[in-house]
Amino acid sequence: MFDTRFSSEIQGRIDQKTKPLGALGQLEKVAYQLALIQSQGKAQAIDNISLDQPTVLVFAGDHGIAEEGVSIAPSAVTQQMVLNFLAGGAAINCFCRANDVAIKVIDCGILVPVEQESPQLVKQRLGERTGNLAIEPAMTVQQVHQGLVWGQEVVDGVIDQGCNLIMFGEMGIGNTSSASALLAAFTGESAERCVGLGTGVSSEQLEKKKRLVSQGVARCGSTDPKTLLAELGGFEIVQMVGGFLAAAKQKTPVLVDGFIVTVAALLATKIDPSCRDYLIFAHQSHESGHQIALEQLDAEPLLDLSLRLGEGTGAVLAVPLLRAAAEFYNNMASFAEAGVTV
Amino acid sequence: MFDTRFSSEIQGRIDQKTKPLGALGQLEKVAYQLALIQSQGKAQAIDNISLDQPTVLVFAGDHGIAEEGVSIAPSAVTQQMVLNFLAGGAAINCFCRANDVAIKVIDCGILVPVEQESPQLVKQRLGERTGNLAIEPAMTVQQVHQGLVWGQEVVDGVIDQGCNLIMFGEMGIGNTSSASALLAAFTGESAERCVGLGTGVSSEQLEKKKRLVSQGVARCGSTDPKTLLAELGGFEIVQMVGGFLAAAKQKTPVLVDGFIVTVAALLATKIDPSCRDYLIFAHQSHESGHQIALEQLDAEPLLDLSLRLGEGTGAVLAVPLLRAAAEFYNNMASFAEAGVTV
Repeated sequence: MFDTRFSSEIQGRIDQKTKPLGALGQLEKVAYQLALIQSQGKAQAIDNISLDQPTVLVFAGDHGIAEEGVSIAPSAVTQQMVLNFLAGGAAINCFCRANDVAIKVIDCGILVPVEQESPQLVKQRLGERTGNLAIEPAMTVQQVHQGLVWGQEVVDGVIDQGCNLIMFGEMGIGNTSSASALLAAFTGESAERCVGLGTGVSSEQLEKKKRLVSQGVARCGSTDPKTLLAELGGFEIVQMVGGFLAAAKQKTPVLVDGFIVTVAALLATKIDPSCRDYLIFAHQSHESGHQIALEQLDAEPLLDLSLRLGEGTGAVLAVPLLRAAAEFYNNMASFAEAGVTV
Repeated sequence: MFDTRFSSEIQGRIDQKTKPLGALGQLEKVAYQLALIQSQGKAQAIDNISLDQPTVLVFAGDHGIAEEGVSIAPSAVTQQMVLNFLAGGAAINCFCRANDVAIKVIDCGILVPVEQESPQLVKQRLGERTGNLAIEPAMTVQQVHQGLVWGQEVVDGVIDQGCNLIMFGEMGIGNTSSASALLAAFTGESAERCVGLGTGVSSEQLEKKKRLVSQGVARCGSTDPKTLLAELGGFEIVQMVGGFLAAAKQKTPVLVDGFIVTVAALLATKIDPSCRDYLIFAHQSHESGHQIALEQLDAEPLLDLSLRLGEGTGAVLAVPLLRAAAEFYNNMASFAEAGVTV
């Protein structure tokens, strides 16, 4: 049960700061949510939000549907980008450095495993790639269960080490097809509305992608989240769902990235509705299905920068806004303290 | 003349990064603009954007129109908030601490000067407050000229000390009325559209504010920016206009805050059109006239967080986005470097 006993104390603290009521807009809502989350299990409302060791977990997996040519790149790029993450050369690495965020990469099942060992690399391979969701189940129910467990374990691990703000990112050629299929099957929306350009396919590819996703959704015929994950999911998506479940159990906020991560969040809230209380939405991506997923979650993202990259980039870019929210909650003067007579 | 010789090299560098073309959305535009600005006067396109000692200058001034009761607070609050800035207790201080941004406060003419001396306080008083713009000129033409000079001097000073990213903030009870009047007179838009709630006036106050602003605009009858500043301006607004002119002369980017700062930017571009090349727009405020001013400048702000505070808060919140843009421009791997075969 999410404890809202301290909501009025927390709001009162925010309202006493030296600014007109509500003048800090969404940052006030973020401060309120973070304070409420961090008050869980406490005897009184907190007067200090802490953001310790923010960490992005980038889940990578390959997809059978990529064989159909519905992406701008072949599956080999998934591994190449994992190596880029480990070498520090990708966009997500740049944003982590700029914003002092830690990164781990999880191989959830990519076509060619990386040989190197790295403290930043976690190997939790559910296979080498999923089945082609258009014509067959993406994975078995056993793989779904294993994926949920592994996703929980990796989140539990970083929380045990002192992280109290988690982000998820993803990499996997073909994974917007999987996320679109999951979203369409889960919500009953058409593939037409749920499928978008991904990282930038041609209009011909887009039509094919819509057709294949539609075919997969028709094949599936369920709205149970675990069944959906088995039929239409991805190895990285199922592990992210496990991660969301773990974060909620550990009463830890998750800063939610773009389309694919939001679809994972949506499925997690179906398995455990208490997940929703711990979600902060980082950004509105330009992928067409994202708005549908956000509406399902009644979410209002902080950023809208026309990003369409994934990797957790949108989430990591929003971390400074959370730090700013924490700083004003913790240290901004009240009217009384500052002698301001409004 | 703004030198665009290196635009294709800069865009090429961005396009070779390991991401789909354009996938970093507005951050790519920001990196492009920063790189182009920092290439001015250079023999080749830069491969490293530097953001050194970002500094927000908070200009404070009092307004004669405040006597009419068109704000949520009396003029005394301007000085109280200046003291709050100097004590580190205001929202702008919190955001500066969170984002490692330096702050200076400029007393441009507030009702009661602060007695204390502080290295963060610059005293450039044009008077104790402006005339009531509804019925009389806000200031003399001599005050306008002095304000422009002082605004230039304070910006030149921080640039001389090594700052290469400037922000302006403002504090002044009544200054949304002044900014609305300037905007209406400059653009020919109605007071109805240019006047908003400020930090949150009642509907009765809003009607009065519209009437007084309308009266001031009718009294003025000019679109010359210096005449407008004399008739309808504020001591803090005229010094910000001088600041924009100085930043452009020094080829230094300015990260533009909300409504009032944007109106100052608009007037500055009328005096010297080359100012526009150095402007990056931080946020969309909820003040109704802001959208009009942004359209005049063909501006697309980075953030939209429902802020309505001023002080430079929106600008300082956007600094991490510029740092993220610089980091990806400087250090993100190219396809060739990372061995990614897209």
